Amino acid sequence: MTEQPITADLVERENAARETALKRDYEALGEQLDRRGISIDAIRDRVAAFGVAVPSWGVGTGGTRFARFPGPGEPRDIFDKIEDCAVIHQLTRATPTISLHIPWDKAEPEKLRQAAERFGLAFDAMNSNTFQDHPGQEHSYKYGSLSHTDAATRRQAVEHNLECIEIGKTLGSKALTVWIGDGSNFPGQSDFARAFERYLSSMKEVYAALPDDWRLFTEHKMYEPAFYSTVVQDWGTNYMIAKELGPKAYCLVDLGHHAPNVNIEMIVSRLIQFGKLGGFHFNDSKYGDDDLDTGSVDPYRLFLVFNELVGAELRNVAGFDPAHMLDQSHNVTDPIESLMVSATEVTRAFAQALLVDRKVLADCQEENDALMASETLKTAFRTDVGPILAMARLKSGGAVDPVVAYRASGYRAKAAAERPAITGTGGGIV
Amino acid sequence: MTEQPITADLVERENAARETALKRDYEALGEQLDRRGISIDAIRDRVAAFGVAVPSWGVGTGGTRFARFPGPGEPRDIFDKIEDCAVIHQLTRATPTISLHIPWDKAEPEKLRQAAERFGLAFDAMNSNTFQDHPGQEHSYKYGSLSHTDAATRRQAVEHNLECIEIGKTLGSKALTVWIGDGSNFPGQSDFARAFERYLSSMKEVYAALPDDWRLFTEHKMYEPAFYSTVVQDWGTNYMIAKELGPKAYCLVDLGHHAPNVNIEMIVSRLIQFGKLGGFHFNDSKYGDDDLDTGSVDPYRLFLVFNELVGAELRNVAGFDPAHMLDQSHNVTDPIESLMVSATEVTRAFAQALLVDRKVLADCQEENDALMASETLKTAFRTDVGPILAMARLKSGGAVDPVVAYRASGYRAKAAAERPAITGTGGGIV
Amino acid sequence: MTEQPITADLVERENAARETALKRDYEALGEQLDRRGISIDAIRDRVAAFGVAVPSWGVGTGGTRFARFPGPGEPRDIFDKIEDCAVIHQLTRATPTISLHIPWDKAEPEKLRQAAERFGLAFDAMNSNTFQDHPGQEHSYKYGSLSHTDAATRRQAVEHNLECIEIGKTLGSKALTVWIGDGSNFPGQSDFARAFERYLSSMKEVYAALPDDWRLFTEHKMYEPAFYSTVVQDWGTNYMIAKELGPKAYCLVDLGHHAPNVNIEMIVSRLIQFGKLGGFHFNDSKYGDDDLDTGSVDPYRLFLVFNELVGAELRNVAGFDPAHMLDQSHNVTDPIESLMVSATEVTRAFAQALLVDRKVLADCQEENDALMASETLKTAFRTDVGPILAMARLKSGGAVDPVVAYRASGYRAKAAAERPAITGTGGGIV
Amino acid sequence: MTEQPITADLVERENAARETALKRDYEALGEQLDRRGISIDAIRDRVAAFGVAVPSWGVGTGGTRFARFPGPGEPRDIFDKIEDCAVIHQLTRATPTISLHIPWDKAEPEKLRQAAERFGLAFDAMNSNTFQDHPGQEHSYKYGSLSHTDAATRRQAVEHNLECIEIGKTLGSKALTVWIGDGSNFPGQSDFARAFERYLSSMKEVYAALPDDWRLFTEHKMYEPAFYSTVVQDWGTNYMIAKELGPKAYCLVDLGHHAPNVNIEMIVSRLIQFGKLGGFHFNDSKYGDDDLDTGSVDPYRLFLVFNELVGAELRNVAGFDPAHMLDQSHNVTDPIESLMVSATEVTRAFAQALLVDRKVLADCQEENDALMASETLKTAFRTDVGPILAMARLKSGGAVDPVVAYRASGYRAKAAAERPAITGTGGGIV
Repeated sequence: MTEQPITADLVERENAARETALKRDYEALGEQLDRRGISIDAIRDRVAAFGVAVPSWGVGTGGTRFARFPGPGEPRDIFDKIEDCAVIHQLTRATPTISLHIPWDKAEPEKLRQAAERFGLAFDAMNSNTFQDHPGQEHSYKYGSLSHTDAATRRQAVEHNLECIEIGKTLGSKALTVWIGDGSNFPGQSDFARAFERYLSSMKEVYAALPDDWRLFTEHKMYEPAFYSTVVQDWGTNYMIAKELGPKAYCLVDLGHHAPNVNIEMIVSRLIQFGKLGGFHFNDSKYGDDDLDTGSVDPYRLFLVFNELVGAELRNVAGFDPAHMLDQSHNVTDPIESLMVSATEVTRAFAQALLVDRKVLADCQEENDALMASETLKTAFRTDVGPILAMARLKSGGAVDPVVAYRASGYRAKAAAERPAITGTGGGIV
Repeated sequence: MTEQPITADLVERENAARETALKRDYEALGEQLDRRGISIDAIRDRVAAFGVAVPSWGVGTGGTRFARFPGPGEPRDIFDKIEDCAVIHQLTRATPTISLHIPWDKAEPEKLRQAAERFGLAFDAMNSNTFQDHPGQEHSYKYGSLSHTDAATRRQAVEHNLECIEIGKTLGSKALTVWIGDGSNFPGQSDFARAFERYLSSMKEVYAALPDDWRLFTEHKMYEPAFYSTVVQDWGTNYMIAKELGPKAYCLVDLGHHAPNVNIEMIVSRLIQFGKLGGFHFNDSKYGDDDLDTGSVDPYRLFLVFNELVGAELRNVAGFDPAHMLDQSHNVTDPIESLMVSATEVTRAFAQALLVDRKVLADCQEENDALMASETLKTAFRTDVGPILAMARLKSGGAVDPVVAYRASGYRAKAAAERPAITGTGGGIV
Repeated sequence: MTEQPITADLVERENAARETALKRDYEALGEQLDRRGISIDAIRDRVAAFGVAVPSWGVGTGGTRFARFPGPGEPRDIFDKIEDCAVIHQLTRATPTISLHIPWDKAEPEKLRQAAERFGLAFDAMNSNTFQDHPGQEHSYKYGSLSHTDAATRRQAVEHNLECIEIGKTLGSKALTVWIGDGSNFPGQSDFARAFERYLSSMKEVYAALPDDWRLFTEHKMYEPAFYSTVVQDWGTNYMIAKELGPKAYCLVDLGHHAPNVNIEMIVSRLIQFGKLGGFHFNDSKYGDDDLDTGSVDPYRLFLVFNELVGAELRNVAGFDPAHMLDQSHNVTDPIESLMVSATEVTRAFAQALLVDRKVLADCQEENDALMASETLKTAFRTDVGPILAMARLKSGGAVDPVVAYRASGYRAKAAAERPAITGTGGGIV
Repeated sequence: MTEQPITADLVERENAARETALKRDYEALGEQLDRRGISIDAIRDRVAAFGVAVPSWGVGTGGTRFARFPGPGEPRDIFDKIEDCAVIHQLTRATPTISLHIPWDKAEPEKLRQAAERFGLAFDAMNSNTFQDHPGQEHSYKYGSLSHTDAATRRQAVEHNLECIEIGKTLGSKALTVWIGDGSNFPGQSDFARAFERYLSSMKEVYAALPDDWRLFTEHKMYEPAFYSTVVQDWGTNYMIAKELGPKAYCLVDLGHHAPNVNIEMIVSRLIQFGKLGGFHFNDSKYGDDDLDTGSVDPYRLFLVFNELVGAELRNVAGFDPAHMLDQSHNVTDPIESLMVSATEVTRAFAQALLVDRKVLADCQEENDALMASETLKTAFRTDVGPILAMARLKSGGAVDPVVAYRASGYRAKAAAERPAITGTGGGIV
C-alpha cells in the first residue's frame, strides 16, 4: 500500500475545519456555472485527472550567481527529494510524477523505482546535464558540449545523453529533455552555422538511440549561461531541430526563456499547428529567466497558454499530448510550499480555460467582435475556480488547503532535525 | 544618354576640393591594409559594385501616429520620387534601383519605366499594400487582409498582390515583397491557428501566380499596427511560411521588427543555413520599430549582420543572393540626405566585413579563443573605411561627400519652388 | 434635470432581465466575504463613489502611423464627443468627468459647460497639445515645443498652455496635464542638458500662471514620437521636474510609457512616498505604448497598482489624491464599448485592492513569509468582484451589463445615421 | 623602485617589433587630425593621463548560477589578485588603481598597502558586501540587509559598511560603493515604502560615518538577485537617495543595470546636470546584466556615454569628477586579457569623445540639423584612434599590443604552476 509522508489524520482534521465553507462556495459557484451552461462536477473531474510533473531539483533551495541561501531541512540526496515530492503530491494530488536530472540524481535505478513506488509516484522525462563539469569528467563543457568544436567533447556529451536514456528505461520514463548551455559571450566567438551543424549532428546520434515509444524534447533559451548567443536560442531554431531530427522530436517551451514582450501563447499555437509542441516548463518571470513561481507575476498569461492547450484538445489536434512540468528556482520560500502553490496555479489555469465559452468565442472571432472575444476569455479567467480545485483535491484524498495543512504537519521541522544543514555561501545552482 | 538631376559641374567642383586629402588618406589606409595582407583597391572595387535599393516612399517625410511634419519640396507623385531617387544614386552611386509600393506609386507602367531609365535607374522588388484602405476599395482591411475571416476580403487582398506582380512584370521587377498588418489587439480577438491557415491559403494563391524567375519575400514584424499579436510575428513563423510555399519563397528580415535584445545576426545565419534568407530592410532602432536611419544608433550590429553575409558569400553557400533595401522613416531630416547617408552606412558595413581576417577568425573559433575572435572582428570594424567608400564613389562618378555636394546643389530649394507645399497635420504614413 | 442619451426604459428592461441572477451571486459572494471579515455592502459603496475621467479624444477611433479605420458614427466635434461620454457614464456610473484636449476640443466655453451639465458631467484636467502643428500656427513643433532651441517657438508653446489654463478656469477644471513630444531621433541631435534647461524654464512660466487651487501634471514617456531620446523620458526626470517647479507640480504616470519589464507599481510607491504622485493615464500594453484597453493584457499589474493606491490611502499619506483618467487608442472596437469596459476594469482593480487583508499582508512582510504575502494579494485578486461592480451600478442607476444595454439601445446606429462618415485613409492621431 | 610582474626586456622586444608600423599609422592619423584642427599629441597626452580602476574580483573567472569554469592560475587570495592587477597596469598603463571588495579581500591593511605599492598601484573605492552570507555572520541576508525588516540584521549590515570605511581609511581609499541585493521575488513580499524607509535610515548611519573627504556611491540595479523588485531599482530612486543623504552622496551608474532599450547616456546627462553623478561601473550587455566585456557588443553606446562626460568637462560643470571602474564577469576568457582589452576600450571611447567637433555639434543642435549632428559624432567615433592609444602606452612604458605581450610573457602558465587549481563545480560568484 502507498505510504504518505504526512499522517492521514492531520490532513483529515485540517480538511474537516474547511469543508463546510468549501461546500457553500462550491454550491454557489455550481449554480452560477449552471446558468452559464457548465457542469461544475464535470470540471472538477477534469481537474482531478490533471497532473504536472515536479522536478527533483525543485525541492532544494535555488540561488543566483551572487548567492544561495539554503533553508532548513534541505534534501541531501535524491531519496530525500523523492520524499519531499511525495509531500507535494499527497497534499495537492496534482503532481504524480518526478522529473530526474542526471548526474545530480544518479543512484541505483532499482532503489530509485522502489523509493518512488513507495509513495505512489512515477518518473517523468529524464534531464541530461552538459552545462556543468562533473567530478571525474574528462572534457570540460566550458566552451560547449553537444556543439563543442572538439569532437571528443561532443562524444562525451552524446554518451551522457545515451546514459540518461538507459537510466530512464529502467525507471519507466518515456522522454528525454535536452537543454544545453552552449553559446557564446562575444561576437565572433562562435561560428553560428558550424556550431548549429555540430549540434544537429550530435543530436542525431542521441535521437538514434531513442526507444520507439520515447519522445525527445529540446528546449530553447534566449540567453544565460551564454550571454551573446545561444545555440538553441528561440522557438524558430527549436522547430528546425525537431524537423531535422524526426517524428519523435518535439519542442519544449519554458515560459521564462523568451525575449521581452514576446507573445508566448502564439508560439504555443504555432507549434501545435505544425505538430511539434512537446511540452512545458512552467514558471513565471518579470525580467528574463527569473524562474519565479508559476502564475505569481502574470497569471493571465498562464491562462492564455492553457486557453491554447484546451482549444487544441477540443479541436482534437492529431498527436497533441504535451508534457507538463514545473521548473522554478525557489530562493526565498520553502520549496515544497512553492511547488504546491505552483501546481495549483497550473491546475487553476487549466480549470479556467475549461470554462471558456468556445462557441461564443468562435463567433466573436468570426465576426471580429474583439471586445466580446476578450470579455469571453475574461469571464472564464475571472471565475474564482478555487472551490473546484479544493473539491477535486478533497475527493482525491488531498488537502483542501495544502499549504496550511503542510505547515500544520511540522514536516519541515522534522526534516531539519533529520537532515544536517548545508553550509557554504557559494552561488546557486538551479 | 543618362540624365542627372544635379549638374556634373557642381559635383566635379565639390570633388576637386576634397581630392587631395582623400588621396592622402586612401594611401595611408592602403599602406596599413597592405601590412594586414589586404589590397585596398580590391576592396574599393567590391564596394563600387555594391548596391542597395531605395524605397520610393522613403523620399517623402515620414511621421508617427501623433503627427507628420512635412519638409519643403515634398514629392507630389511617383515621378517626383524617381527624380529624388536619382539624386541619391547620382551622388552615392550606391542605389541603382527603386522599390515601388502599390497603390501609392501606381502609374502607367511605360511612363514609370521611362522615368527610371532617364536617370539610369531600375526597379527592385514590388511592395503590395493591404494594411490600409484605399479609395474605392470594396472590403475594408480594418480586421485583416490575407488572413481576414471573410473570404471576399481575402480574395480582394490576393487580387491586389496579383496586380502588383503584373505591374512588376512590365517594369522588370523580379520579386514581390508581402508585408501585412494583420493581427489582433486583444487576447481572444483572433484564433491564431485559423488566422495562420487562412494566411497560408491566400499566400499559396499569390505564390502560384509568381513567374518562374521571381522570388516571393515575406516579412515578419513583432507588433504594430496590431498590438497583441501579428500573423507573421517572427522569423520562426516566417520560416514556416517560406517552407510551406515553396522554393521561390524567402524570408525578408527588417532589422527593426524584432523583440528587444534579440540577436538578429544569428537569425540571419539560421536563414542562410536553411536556404531561406531573401533579403533585408535596413534601418536602425532603439526602442522598437523606430525606423531610424541605418547604422545611426548601433553601427556594430549592422556590421555583425554583414559579417554573416560576407561569411556566407565566402563559403559559397548555394543559392545565397539576398536583396538589400533601405526602409526607414525620415521624420526630422531631409529624406534625400538620410537615404544617402544610410546607403553609405550599408556600404560601410559591407566594406568593414570584407576586411575581417577570416582565417584568423576561424582559428580563434576552433580554439575557443573568444577574446581574439572578438578582437578580429573589432579590428575590421574599427578600420575607418571612409576613404575607400569615397574613392569608390569618385571613380564611379559620384560625390566624395554626397551630403555636402547635395547641399551645395540647391536641389531641395528648387524642388520646394516647383512643388507646392503639402498641408495637413494628420498622423504620418510610413 | 439631467438628460440621458439612452432611455431609462431600455436600461431598466435590460437590468430586470439580469437582476435575479445578480442578487444570487451578490449574496453568495457576500457570505464568502463575511467569512473573510469583509462587508460586501461597504465595498459596494466605495465602488459606487469611485470615478475615472474619460478623455474626449477617446470616443473617436484611434489609429497607427500606418492607417486609421474609422467606425460608423464617429463624433464630429466636441459636442458629439460629450454625448458619447454621457452614454458611458449613464451606463457605468463610473465616469463623471471628461478631460479636454486643446485645440482639438476648442469651442465657446459657455457652450461646453452647458453641454456637459446637460448630462450631469464635469470637466477633469485640461490637456495641452504642442506635439502637432495646428492650422494658422506661426512656429512649427517639428523640432520641439517647450524645449525648442528657438525662443519664439518656446514662447508660443508656453502661451498655448496658458490659454489651456484660461479655458479650464471657465470650465471648472482644476488641473493642467502637460505631455510633450519633444526629443530627438539621432544621437547628437539634441543637447540633453540644454534641452532640459529650456524645458524647465518654459514650464516655470506655465507653473507661474497656475491658479492656487490647480495642480500641474507632467507626464513622462520613454519614446514616441521621438525615437532616440525624449525630454521627459522617465519618472526620474519627471520627479526632478515636479521638485523644480514647486508644490503644485506632480508626476502623472501613464501605464504604457515605460521601458520593457519595468516595475510600475514600485514607481507609483516611490512617487507616493515623496509626495509627487499626481495621477494616472490608464491603459494596457504588451510591446510598448500600445494604448490597449485597460486590463486587457495584464490585469494583475493593474491590480498591483491599485494595491499601492489603496495601501497609501489606508496609511493616510498626507496630500495623497491621485487623478484617474483612461487614455487608450481604440482601433478595432466601438470606442464607447471599450471605455465602458475599461472604466469597469479600473473599478474592478480598485474593488479587488479593497479586499486585500492588510493586517495579514503586513505580518507576512514583517516575517518575510513571501509565499503567504503573495497568496494574500492573490486571494483578493481572484475574488470575482463582478457582482459588487454590477450592484454598485444598479444602485446608482446604471446598467447591470453596460455593453449589452448599449448594444440593445441602438445608440451607435442612430449616431451613424446622424453623423456623416469620416473619410480619408491617413494615419491615425491618438 | 616599482616592481613589474613581467620583465621590461620582453615588453621592449615586443614593442620594438611594432614600433615602425605604429609610427607610420600615428603620423598618417596625425596629418588627418591636423586637417580637422586637432593636435594628435594633445589627444595622446590626455589619453596617457586617463585611468580606470580594476576590481579585485575581476581577475578571477566569473560564473553563472548554472556553473563556473575556472581557468588555470586562478588567484588564491588578494595578494595574487594584486599581482594580476599589476600585470594589467604594467602593459596598459591605464589601470593605476584597484577597487577592493570586503570581506573577500580582507587582509592586514598594512600588507595590502605594501603589496599595492610594490607595483605602484593605489586603491580606489571600497565595496561592501551584504548580498551574501559570510562564515560566522550572525544574521542572514536571505531577506535583505540594509532594508531588512529586522533591526539587528540592518545593524549588522550597517556595521559592515562602517568597517569597510575603516579599512579604506588605512588604505588611502576615498570612497565607499554600496550595492545591495535587497528586494523581493513576489508581489506583496515587500512593502516598497517601508523597505525604502528602512534602507534610507540605514544609509544615513553609514553616511554619518563617512570622512569629510570621502564620497558615497550608491548603485542601482533593476533586477537580480531579486527578481520582482529591488530596493534601489533605477536612477530615479538612486537620485532620491543621493538627495536624501547629502552632498557627499552620489549615484553610481553600472552600464548593465537598466531596463531594455533605456537611453543610458541621457541618464548620465541628467545626473551630471543635477550634480549627482558619482561614477561608473563599465561593462557591456546584450540581454540584461550580462557583465560582458566593456564595448564588446555595443561600442557606440560606450562612446555616447563618454561624449556626455567630455562635454560636461568642457562645460566646466561644477564638482564634476566621476569615478571610473570596470565591473565585468569573465567566464570564457583569461580575466587579465579581458581587463586589458576593456581598459583599452574605455580609453578608446574617451579618445574618440575628445575628437568630437563641439563647435560644429553645438551649431547643428541649435539649428536642428539632426543629420549633421549625428555625422559629427560619427566622424569622431569612426576615427581609428588605435595608434593614439598605442603611442600613449608606449610613451608611458606600457606595451604597444598588451595582449600579445602578455601572451608572449608566459605569465599565465607561471601562475598556473604556482597556484594550485581551484576545484568545485558550483555556480559562480561575480
